[in-house]
Amino acid sequence: MATLAPELSVSRWFNTPKPISLEGLRGRVVLLHAFQMLCPGCVAHGTPQAQRAHELFRNADLTVIGLHTVFEHHAAMTPVSLEAFIHEYRLTFPIGVDAPAEDGPIPVTMRRYQMRGTPTAIVIARDGTIRHHGFGQEDDLALGAILGALLAETP
Amino acid sequence: MATLAPELSVSRWFNTPKPISLEGLRGRVVLLHAFQMLCPGCVAHGTPQAQRAHELFRNADLTVIGLHTVFEHHAAMTPVSLEAFIHEYRLTFPIGVDAPAEDGPIPVTMRRYQMRGTPTAIVIARDGTIRHHGFGQEDDLALGAILGALLAETP
Amino acid sequence: MATLAPELSVSRWFNTPKPISLEGLRGRVVLLHAFQMLCPGCVAHGTPQAQRAHELFRNADLTVIGLHTVFEHHAAMTPVSLEAFIHEYRLTFPIGVDAPAEDGPIPVTMRRYQMRGTPTAIVIARDGTIRHHGFGQEDDLALGAILGALLAETP
Amino acid sequence: MATLAPELSVSRWFNTPKPISLEGLRGRVVLLHAFQMLCPGCVAHGTPQAQRAHELFRNADLTVIGLHTVFEHHAAMTPVSLEAFIHEYRLTFPIGVDAPAEDGPIPVTMRRYQMRGTPTAIVIARDGTIRHHGFGQEDDLALGAILGALLAETP
Repeated sequence: MATLAPELSVSRWFNTPKPISLEGLRGRVVLLHAFQMLCPGCVAHGTPQAQRAHELFRNADLTVIGLHTVFEHHAAMTPVSLEAFIHEYRLTFPIGVDAPAEDGPIPVTMRRYQMRGTPTAIVIARDGTIRHHGFGQEDDLALGAILGALLAETP
Repeated sequence: MATLAPELSVSRWFNTPKPISLEGLRGRVVLLHAFQMLCPGCVAHGTPQAQRAHELFRNADLTVIGLHTVFEHHAAMTPVSLEAFIHEYRLTFPIGVDAPAEDGPIPVTMRRYQMRGTPTAIVIARDGTIRHHGFGQEDDLALGAILGALLAETP
Repeated sequence: MATLAPELSVSRWFNTPKPISLEGLRGRVVLLHAFQMLCPGCVAHGTPQAQRAHELFRNADLTVIGLHTVFEHHAAMTPVSLEAFIHEYRLTFPIGVDAPAEDGPIPVTMRRYQMRGTPTAIVIARDGTIRHHGFGQEDDLALGAILGALLAETP
Repeated sequence: MATLAPELSVSRWFNTPKPISLEGLRGRVVLLHAFQMLCPGCVAHGTPQAQRAHELFRNADLTVIGLHTVFEHHAAMTPVSLEAFIHEYRLTFPIGVDAPAEDGPIPVTMRRYQMRGTPTAIVIARDGTIRHHGFGQEDDLALGAILGALLAETP
């Protein structure tokens, strides 16, 4: 029943010295925050929540990853603009630019996960399976409970 | 290292057909929210958080209990006033009035737990031991993680 | 068309060395904030707004007056409870207890103004006439504009 | 003592069928909201406040104008990006792009007004003079009072 999380396809990384792969994170819990820098719900809620999770679970086996899944206004949300956004919003967790698709506006990873829009929160367990896939605003208490439960699983 | 949670001493219950004891809740996780109805930090944050936890984990093995630990302004926060407060704020989780002490302003349960003030959040695991004791505003994400981890423990 | 604001009927004052009358405030603008200490919309929004107005216009010709218009749960919101509420919420503007009526639950001043509930904001111009009567949450920007306009009128 | 507000120098307008000049608005009150689309304090507070003022005073003699004063991250905040920002945030008041200067990063109008950063709120009276120049977050109640007072002045 559990689905193995598809690998990320990222064209450029920020806030990490080297590329990140989900395969390389096996054994850890992963919170994948898919967003667009001009998506109001992301900026007001989802992205700050990802940043807080990154800080709160700093000493736990959790990795927070941002994924810039641009599926509209492509010319308005280039990596140059994203870089300024990351700087201005003081985001410190690793953020990857979802690789553009050759045949449509929806980027590669976003399509692999069949995301419906942004923000989307994906939680991946230590065994690499998807345990939560939520579109829209995630309640802090509910998200915390999901992360707490998965972190409690034996590695 | 883990301390068994002391039993509650309650003089009057609201929102429950019969008295609640921690002993009777063994096997379940308990969130004990100690508050005063005229404590601004409780009204603005702690009490609504307890209500949200009550609703969010309705189908999980979690019991949320409010404890009205009046240690100041006793004449201002009588059970009559508390009853109106519960009604006006639409609180639906069980709430007990911490039994007044015979020899001082601090009520019995509050003293047993050595609480420092209100709001205080106490989280009790399925085995009856205290796993978290926090004074002041609790972050939703952090509290959710504690509850999620304890709920993940085998009953 | 403008109605002269009826006089207040107050049984007890807090935060003022002597009773206040609207007649004595002629020449000043008055913001009358009617509330109940157990009304959630008052506690979360209206009462803090009145306190902010009191502080913001400290050097202007504005007097902010709170009026505790208890029309329900009378036993729960006595002056003793109100006094603790004022202390805990650090309210510093003058607050009067609306005089109980002899023949019903609605207090005297509340009835004179035909208020529909709490919170209610009444704004009175320098000439003593009512210029605004709002029930429910008042937008800060809109309320500020009303006060600014009336303060700009020549005394 | 009152300073006449310098004219705007705008390279491109959004949300208006034709260019706007302050001179053409003489007789009206003007709220000039200078912002950058990647300035967190603008996005969270200043720009929504300008939008609310635009809606609240729709039938009053107030014109709200946004001014995109890019003085940093120029490549990240081009008109193409701004256009998407305006669309995504549902901004409906007129917004001009402050004309780039030939000899430095600070655009022309921003320099004329000697603004210190973003957000900046400038309020101009019916006679064209500057009555308020604020840098940073503006309190709604205080801004409302300024606008209300100026609108009360005889045209």
